[in-house]
Amino acid sequence: MISKAVVKFIRALELKKNRRQEGLFVAEGPKVVGDLLRVARPQMVVATPEWLTADRRRRLVADGVELCEATDEELRRASFLKHPQQVIGIFPLLQPTDGESLATLPARELCLALDGVQDPGNLGTIIRIADWFGITHIFCSEDTADVYNPKVVQATMGSIARVQLHYVDLGAFVAQQPEALPVYGTLLDGTDIYAQELTAHGLIVMGNEGNGISAAIRQRVNRRLLIPNYPAGRDTAESLNVAIATAITCAEFRRRTS
Amino acid sequence: MISKAVVKFIRALELKKNRRQEGLFVAEGPKVVGDLLRVARPQMVVATPEWLTADRRRRLVADGVELCEATDEELRRASFLKHPQQVIGIFPLLQPTDGESLATLPARELCLALDGVQDPGNLGTIIRIADWFGITHIFCSEDTADVYNPKVVQATMGSIARVQLHYVDLGAFVAQQPEALPVYGTLLDGTDIYAQELTAHGLIVMGNEGNGISAAIRQRVNRRLLIPNYPAGRDTAESLNVAIATAITCAEFRRRTS
Repeated sequence: MISKAVVKFIRALELKKNRRQEGLFVAEGPKVVGDLLRVARPQMVVATPEWLTADRRRRLVADGVELCEATDEELRRASFLKHPQQVIGIFPLLQPTDGESLATLPARELCLALDGVQDPGNLGTIIRIADWFGITHIFCSEDTADVYNPKVVQATMGSIARVQLHYVDLGAFVAQQPEALPVYGTLLDGTDIYAQELTAHGLIVMGNEGNGISAAIRQRVNRRLLIPNYPAGRDTAESLNVAIATAITCAEFRRRTS
Repeated sequence: MISKAVVKFIRALELKKNRRQEGLFVAEGPKVVGDLLRVARPQMVVATPEWLTADRRRRLVADGVELCEATDEELRRASFLKHPQQVIGIFPLLQPTDGESLATLPARELCLALDGVQDPGNLGTIIRIADWFGITHIFCSEDTADVYNPKVVQATMGSIARVQLHYVDLGAFVAQQPEALPVYGTLLDGTDIYAQELTAHGLIVMGNEGNGISAAIRQRVNRRLLIPNYPAGRDTAESLNVAIATAITCAEFRRRTS
């Protein structure tokens, strides 16, 4: 049984302002909640009896987690999903906060930078791609979608538990990196990614869905990449979706350096 | 000025049943409508004065297209988008119908097969990827999302005008292809795609978001591919989104055969 107050509390967390104020965010479904349970202790779990096995119940209670057993219909009232999936977890914000953001790139790592990626589905998918390809740090401009937006959390399919997002003044962040740092960007006037040397460390910048990489940051891109279409020069799609371009780029970096 | 009847007519086309009955679908925004105008004559165009330049108006009128000039507020009432974009076009269905679907793969072409891809955003993105990589035929199981769903149309970003989708009994279709046809599928127990021979023709099967490729069709996959994660064996995301896997696979086929 979920009270109206709990439903209202959960639904209020759709807004960034409320998430920041409460220090909480919502995750749904066995996969995402299950991955988060490995790294964080939720404040509350709302679940159907199907999910809430005796073993899970015992462990959550031992951890001091507030439990609500709910029917499918009750879960639907609290859920942000079209098709609610057995469990909703209310977790403490787990990503680095302003004061914890890295000021420099970890040495010898390949990292992503997102310059204004605004679609929550794209951001979530990019986090899932980063996880797959062993990229653990993503530097985001302040106008990139919020990582705790329920649509982002859902699209990560649990990878939010394994990838760190640092929200920074991206222009300033990129400017303060050493001159020698390889800064990659996919640009329509770039050079064939398959014909370029790719390093095992550096920063790959991906831009906004409509406008690409902003002018200031584009200036700092010193390895301009192009994902060639096929056959070359044919009249095809004008561009690739930003998550798709991220995937193809990361796959090629990892193919070369494996 | 758009009449209430026109708004109702457009909004009714959100449903597949109504699209089939009227033989029409809805496309929105300058990019998608612009690409479609190159290959099809719309029945009606609803647009803001900003989009409806004198030149466009003249050409559409000459083509016998019904025109509605609309304010942004009127466009919003008819639109399926959160942020309507200047123009809505009502186009005749342009993809192959049942009787026109190809029964066999075009010789020497690389084609895609979708086995139950259900998310409209994924389907639209896959069509855009196919277009970028010069794949012009996609064979879809009957339970794949409808290509004319407004969310699919939007996610194609115009590529719906250049890629043909054939809705078929996919199991029967795959079974009737020559034994020698390379049928690729990405499977978690497949072999590293970078260590396998890839042919310039054949069929690449992509499966349902949750369940992957169905058992019957999986049996017919004779080249099992795996997109390796990084570093190999690390505990990462369990899988990639189907559109992401399609993109990485198509990029690798084209890299090899360019």
